[in-house]
Amino acid sequence: MASKQAPAENMLWGGRFTQGLDPLMVKYNTSLPYDKIFWSQDIRGSIAFARANLAAGILTSGEFAAIEKGFGQIAEEWRSGKFEEKENDEDIHTANERRLSELLGKDVGGKLHTGRSRNEQIATDMRLWLRDELRTLEGYLMDLIKVAVSRSEKEIDVLMPGYTHLQKAQPVRWSHWLLSHATAFTSDLERLREVISRVNRSPLGCGALAGNPFKIDREAMAKELGFEGLLYNSMNAVADREFVLETMQWGSSFMLKISRWAEDLIIYSSLEFGFVRLADTYSTGSSLMPQKKNADSLELLRGKSGRAFGQMAGLYCTIKGLPTTYNKDLQESVEPMLDHIKTVGDSMQIATGVLSTLSIHPDKMLAALAPEMLATEFADYLVRKGVPFREGHHISGRVVQLAEENSVPMDKLTVEQLQGIDARFDEDVVSCLDYERAVELKDATGGTSKSAVREQIEVLKGIL
Amino acid sequence: MASKQAPAENMLWGGRFTQGLDPLMVKYNTSLPYDKIFWSQDIRGSIAFARANLAAGILTSGEFAAIEKGFGQIAEEWRSGKFEEKENDEDIHTANERRLSELLGKDVGGKLHTGRSRNEQIATDMRLWLRDELRTLEGYLMDLIKVAVSRSEKEIDVLMPGYTHLQKAQPVRWSHWLLSHATAFTSDLERLREVISRVNRSPLGCGALAGNPFKIDREAMAKELGFEGLLYNSMNAVADREFVLETMQWGSSFMLKISRWAEDLIIYSSLEFGFVRLADTYSTGSSLMPQKKNADSLELLRGKSGRAFGQMAGLYCTIKGLPTTYNKDLQESVEPMLDHIKTVGDSMQIATGVLSTLSIHPDKMLAALAPEMLATEFADYLVRKGVPFREGHHISGRVVQLAEENSVPMDKLTVEQLQGIDARFDEDVVSCLDYERAVELKDATGGTSKSAVREQIEVLKGIL
Amino acid sequence: MASKQAPAENMLWGGRFTQGLDPLMVKYNTSLPYDKIFWSQDIRGSIAFARANLAAGILTSGEFAAIEKGFGQIAEEWRSGKFEEKENDEDIHTANERRLSELLGKDVGGKLHTGRSRNEQIATDMRLWLRDELRTLEGYLMDLIKVAVSRSEKEIDVLMPGYTHLQKAQPVRWSHWLLSHATAFTSDLERLREVISRVNRSPLGCGALAGNPFKIDREAMAKELGFEGLLYNSMNAVADREFVLETMQWGSSFMLKISRWAEDLIIYSSLEFGFVRLADTYSTGSSLMPQKKNADSLELLRGKSGRAFGQMAGLYCTIKGLPTTYNKDLQESVEPMLDHIKTVGDSMQIATGVLSTLSIHPDKMLAALAPEMLATEFADYLVRKGVPFREGHHISGRVVQLAEENSVPMDKLTVEQLQGIDARFDEDVVSCLDYERAVELKDATGGTSKSAVREQIEVLKGIL
Amino acid sequence: MASKQAPAENMLWGGRFTQGLDPLMVKYNTSLPYDKIFWSQDIRGSIAFARANLAAGILTSGEFAAIEKGFGQIAEEWRSGKFEEKENDEDIHTANERRLSELLGKDVGGKLHTGRSRNEQIATDMRLWLRDELRTLEGYLMDLIKVAVSRSEKEIDVLMPGYTHLQKAQPVRWSHWLLSHATAFTSDLERLREVISRVNRSPLGCGALAGNPFKIDREAMAKELGFEGLLYNSMNAVADREFVLETMQWGSSFMLKISRWAEDLIIYSSLEFGFVRLADTYSTGSSLMPQKKNADSLELLRGKSGRAFGQMAGLYCTIKGLPTTYNKDLQESVEPMLDHIKTVGDSMQIATGVLSTLSIHPDKMLAALAPEMLATEFADYLVRKGVPFREGHHISGRVVQLAEENSVPMDKLTVEQLQGIDARFDEDVVSCLDYERAVELKDATGGTSKSAVREQIEVLKGIL
Repeated sequence: MASKQAPAENMLWGGRFTQGLDPLMVKYNTSLPYDKIFWSQDIRGSIAFARANLAAGILTSGEFAAIEKGFGQIAEEWRSGKFEEKENDEDIHTANERRLSELLGKDVGGKLHTGRSRNEQIATDMRLWLRDELRTLEGYLMDLIKVAVSRSEKEIDVLMPGYTHLQKAQPVRWSHWLLSHATAFTSDLERLREVISRVNRSPLGCGALAGNPFKIDREAMAKELGFEGLLYNSMNAVADREFVLETMQWGSSFMLKISRWAEDLIIYSSLEFGFVRLADTYSTGSSLMPQKKNADSLELLRGKSGRAFGQMAGLYCTIKGLPTTYNKDLQESVEPMLDHIKTVGDSMQIATGVLSTLSIHPDKMLAALAPEMLATEFADYLVRKGVPFREGHHISGRVVQLAEENSVPMDKLTVEQLQGIDARFDEDVVSCLDYERAVELKDATGGTSKSAVREQIEVLKGIL
Repeated sequence: MASKQAPAENMLWGGRFTQGLDPLMVKYNTSLPYDKIFWSQDIRGSIAFARANLAAGILTSGEFAAIEKGFGQIAEEWRSGKFEEKENDEDIHTANERRLSELLGKDVGGKLHTGRSRNEQIATDMRLWLRDELRTLEGYLMDLIKVAVSRSEKEIDVLMPGYTHLQKAQPVRWSHWLLSHATAFTSDLERLREVISRVNRSPLGCGALAGNPFKIDREAMAKELGFEGLLYNSMNAVADREFVLETMQWGSSFMLKISRWAEDLIIYSSLEFGFVRLADTYSTGSSLMPQKKNADSLELLRGKSGRAFGQMAGLYCTIKGLPTTYNKDLQESVEPMLDHIKTVGDSMQIATGVLSTLSIHPDKMLAALAPEMLATEFADYLVRKGVPFREGHHISGRVVQLAEENSVPMDKLTVEQLQGIDARFDEDVVSCLDYERAVELKDATGGTSKSAVREQIEVLKGIL
Repeated sequence: MASKQAPAENMLWGGRFTQGLDPLMVKYNTSLPYDKIFWSQDIRGSIAFARANLAAGILTSGEFAAIEKGFGQIAEEWRSGKFEEKENDEDIHTANERRLSELLGKDVGGKLHTGRSRNEQIATDMRLWLRDELRTLEGYLMDLIKVAVSRSEKEIDVLMPGYTHLQKAQPVRWSHWLLSHATAFTSDLERLREVISRVNRSPLGCGALAGNPFKIDREAMAKELGFEGLLYNSMNAVADREFVLETMQWGSSFMLKISRWAEDLIIYSSLEFGFVRLADTYSTGSSLMPQKKNADSLELLRGKSGRAFGQMAGLYCTIKGLPTTYNKDLQESVEPMLDHIKTVGDSMQIATGVLSTLSIHPDKMLAALAPEMLATEFADYLVRKGVPFREGHHISGRVVQLAEENSVPMDKLTVEQLQGIDARFDEDVVSCLDYERAVELKDATGGTSKSAVREQIEVLKGIL
Repeated sequence: MASKQAPAENMLWGGRFTQGLDPLMVKYNTSLPYDKIFWSQDIRGSIAFARANLAAGILTSGEFAAIEKGFGQIAEEWRSGKFEEKENDEDIHTANERRLSELLGKDVGGKLHTGRSRNEQIATDMRLWLRDELRTLEGYLMDLIKVAVSRSEKEIDVLMPGYTHLQKAQPVRWSHWLLSHATAFTSDLERLREVISRVNRSPLGCGALAGNPFKIDREAMAKELGFEGLLYNSMNAVADREFVLETMQWGSSFMLKISRWAEDLIIYSSLEFGFVRLADTYSTGSSLMPQKKNADSLELLRGKSGRAFGQMAGLYCTIKGLPTTYNKDLQESVEPMLDHIKTVGDSMQIATGVLSTLSIHPDKMLAALAPEMLATEFADYLVRKGVPFREGHHISGRVVQLAEENSVPMDKLTVEQLQGIDARFDEDVVSCLDYERAVELKDATGGTSKSAVREQIEVLKGIL
């Protein structure tokens, strides 16, 4: 027998309790404030379920018609902001069913939930909502890639320094930089389509954990709701939140790439680099220092990679070690999912806006090219004359050194001076000092030549 | 020269733009919806700043009096919900200063910001708010520990199985279990006090990044605002969000412990264990299965450890690799901080409520004790007779085996049977089968004997 | 001009420096200790590269033959443990090329690296290695699913309690539990195949960042190495570590599911539940308490979900905010990847071992079924008679209550007593108390009936 | 009765099993390969334990002397690399005790473990090891701060641009930048000392979970081992890994700051900025491009912030939701701890090396100062004449605009032109264009003036 602690006896926190109820617990537990975003999914799911119960003989066609009509009215109430939430409306499922019974009476309303559980309902609502949102995000992502592709076509003539370790390395096309990120984004597009297909599977008809005892036609419901297939085990169907986690893995991966893209542009928009300039809309000016334009949009994009990651990391931790099927812990998957989708979707649109309206400074990019970036050209020149690469590499190092010793830029060395280093340098060696030529020589697939860049553009267009 | 992209030309996303403005960017950037929670901190900081500028000769006493009075009115507007937010009120600092100038005119209102930057303001607001909230949490945490201590005093006679690897290991007192978690919580209490002291340092008077040029008295401002000291480098003062991160490290650490505490209680409240029963307030019953009480409160507590962790992980990632001083990315520290404090504070109160109202089933705990848990007692018995522990261990293993072979519980073996195993077993060996004695023998500090448990209680009371 | 700090002047850390070198820096920087695991991939990549350079006219066929032969010998040295690492062998690429030049002389060895960069080499090595490892893991994962499927076929008759919130909910088949996890694992299998396809794309021929200037045939190299396609942008190809991150997202997702599977089995193997018993190999016995078998294997499986997650989280954070193309930070992707693959692969095999050798206790599972778990059957019974579900639910609640009031198990109530509650209960109501019937009634797809379980088995077999 | 699966029947994975044993499980389970690092801690703990058991009458002084001597020899074997690991040496505790019994025979060796458990041993070993390592790290951290302080004293005259949003904001001293990071590091120093004090508490004498039954003197053991106090609850003492988690929270926090410090220096060492140049030891040169020095050391430092974070995140996740006291999952705390300490300690030393040997380019820093950075000086000038700040701000904006319109740097405007904008500009307005003056005017505590910088230096010295 339990040695029951009378609440009064241990009440150290004063007046929080009201007649044995802890009002804070009610708030801690209630999901309606955020899960009401699923009102339309919940209604669509309920109608599909009722239709299937009609086919199974649980409902008469009159009852089904009443239910369908009742939900029509409830939907209208939500849409117009007139739906009244009541005190015991713990979640969207309860709220909708409660309202239905108010409208239709208990004899009909009381039949809606036959063979159904809130465990399958919430999974259905989340999957339907997420599927639709992800399709919207797919569109945003394609827009972003399109802008990059479109600029890369148009600005293909612009050269800029390519960096490794944030040090000038070799000249590249600005388009090549644009496409390097766009290419990264296309792998997110590819993954997104796979994620959507896994999200878009139906848990409806799985009951609380053990399945449905009224021979419900799950395929028919899935078809009505636009699901691509069924979840095949009822215990898994109600326990699983992998579909949210995978979405967040995908979303945070995309944001990770955005953080690198934003980092590049933040650096390029510093006065020291000066390659790009953000549109006023996406930056914060200062009346004091008109030259100072803070790239707020890019910094927020970069920073929100942390937010997106944190949501994924948090959900991982929430799910870790949970025992089988539904546990209330899983309620903690909803809010992060909602904010994640908003964060990623907004960020895609902001990034597209930034990229569409960005000004570039081809003159500053050109000015930032340094002759030393062409040192490899000398090595390659020699390679074409049969010199082993390592030897050519060594010789071109001496070219750079000579320029340093004479305190002249490398492009001011004479052919005679070069020949003094190695007799195999002919008159045509000056061609090594042409940035455009250097860029065009990288002509294998994936390189910086115009034709190689255009090949990339075609590949991306093919994916879009 | 920039090859400026006219926005119109690249606008792939349709009608989002309004006269060159991207309304989504405005929302993406604006912090007022959440940072207005700091309205009172922002006003207190502004008054302290104005008072210091009065002392520095920047303001006349008439101007200061007007500012103080103006803020009195603004505070009242916030308090009563009448403050009107305007379109360009990007953040709480802008909103408050804009309103002040409306009330006082630009000649006085325009002097408020002399030598000040929003970079120092937001850091000041966050630190003031967080300090006060953490002090509230300190109280909640002490409440939770007190309930555990109080129950452990009262229920000290109750025995239960102690587990390792979720396998029955040795008998312990229920109080000892209570105190094991309470002890863990006290290290959070200790850390919390250290965190508060680091949060409670003043960035006010540090400017945008380089300091204040008007000889402001930072010590005086810090004193007025209750800060314990100054941040000593202006660049660090505006760039640092370690105080938020450390808070979240602390908060998630606490939630990690709560997750283990909740896990124990969830298992103990399963029907198979049956040691405890949650008060109705903290569980969800079912009209169908009255024996089924879902421990929703505990599951939410366990699940929210993920949420708290995710906020910390997200902020870590947001800050990682940022260049020096303020970057807009840091705005992403505010929302996670707000939700983190709410999550941890609510969870502390819920845990306290759960523990205060929990019923225990001493009979079921007792019934769950199994004679095999006393096998070590036989080994210890022999040790006391000079037998090396490893040998004693081996012999007691044979005792268990004998019981198994005879299909009797170990406590049904006769002294003769025991002596058949080892002649050093005397009549008094039966005392080994007494759970209470076993528990009392663990009498060194930190053990399960009454006196050792009471020692722990005194230690905890000393910390509270 | 630089105000150069002579090292000597600031050397606060004593004798660590040797002639201007910091030996700790050498270790901090060197990757050979772990990247030598890629020796064979590095050699295969080099041979493919040399063959392509032969086709491009960079190498003669004699040179190529020498290189191929040289690498044959180097491979043999690695295989037999005789490869000698030299002081300046910073990484596997340097070590292999250095050795090749020793064997062939600089005139031939010095041509190997023509047009190639270590940036593309490491990406190639990692992708080749990872692709092969992931294919091995695919096999392990299929083994695990096969064991679950095979047991579920054989043990389909065993009933057990199904849980929600760790509270007894409805009876299910043991097979249904097995399949709930197996089903979860199949979505990992599906994802794995997608991951492999993204990993298995070729960066070879992309140079340091800008591409290859010697018209190398990237398609031919990709084909030789078994890649499924090319990475189409050279900057992206060397900068990208998404393939590692996605692998770890996948791997940690799998481990998350394993953590839940292990949690279930740990609980089921507690004495209080007693449903399963681990084979000795996978548990730690105790000579003292033979009934005590610690499920060490399961606890390690559960715990390692954290390790796998941490590796993924760490890499995310490492990559966050990096500027474009290769930065040395990316070296930090190698060690986590290696340990991740080992952790996941070992865990799959251990899980398979555990599941293959697990004993089940059908009698204890059956004994754990409680009549109250059948309360919904009464409601469903009434639904079949046309009673609205909510009313049926209410009535079955009264049935449970009556049993409680009379202190009898629900299955000891008489038909008369039931009819006293509701006249619509007929003689056949006793069928509601049959667990097997309850399980068979859940006959819709995904449910617990034998045919529904067998349908799942067929689905899984189709995926394998 | 269990329906035992004969292993043979389900062995799908071929020959891994050897006579019922899974060799992979042995490896998966064994910790000796990494926990042998604790050999000396384990021995010291064992001697302290034996000494306490001597005092408690469990051991004779002869036995104790033999044990102490035996461990002396074992220590020597470890030290000289001659300790032979045996097949069943699962962990360091087993290995040491096994060896002791070999040396002393079972009669004495078999008494060592009396009243002791490996659960308390591993906790003791880890805490002893960690405490000592953290003290070493404390020294490294002080070295790093000292170098920064020392440079900031010496190079106090050097001016550079201060940045917000990576945009030039206001001039600051190079020393102020140095101290901004050093100040951040001191809060890690402060925390470290608190962490050490929590790590350094003794679990010894807590048994497997329930305490010690032989009246062991825990205080005496703690004193002998240099612990600062006891852990007061035996269940908590063996279950707790908070001391590792808190260490990693601290360590990853420090690495987060290092990531920002490194990011600054990486940007400052780009050719576009050119403020600093790394010593050759800490960078990778290129024979091709002598101007190209990749800041490998800084990039590794930045990247390893992810590694350190991942270890912390992983452990959090491992611990989450574990039931009470010891579970094997906790073994997963050891390896991350070892690598974490190594990573943080190495990184501290590398950072110190980098900073000690860094060359700065004061001329380039000066050249990077732009007159527009002084625009606020005009506003402040007017404020000193009684103009409200917001009006002064507006006027100085017009100054900047005028310079832009006339395409002259702001410092080329004449006093007449300035007076044309606002009559309150006097001849002395030209002083506004002096960078040194601007820096000196920020004279409040924490600012950029020499005296304010020197105040910071004194504060830091006080903490060291």
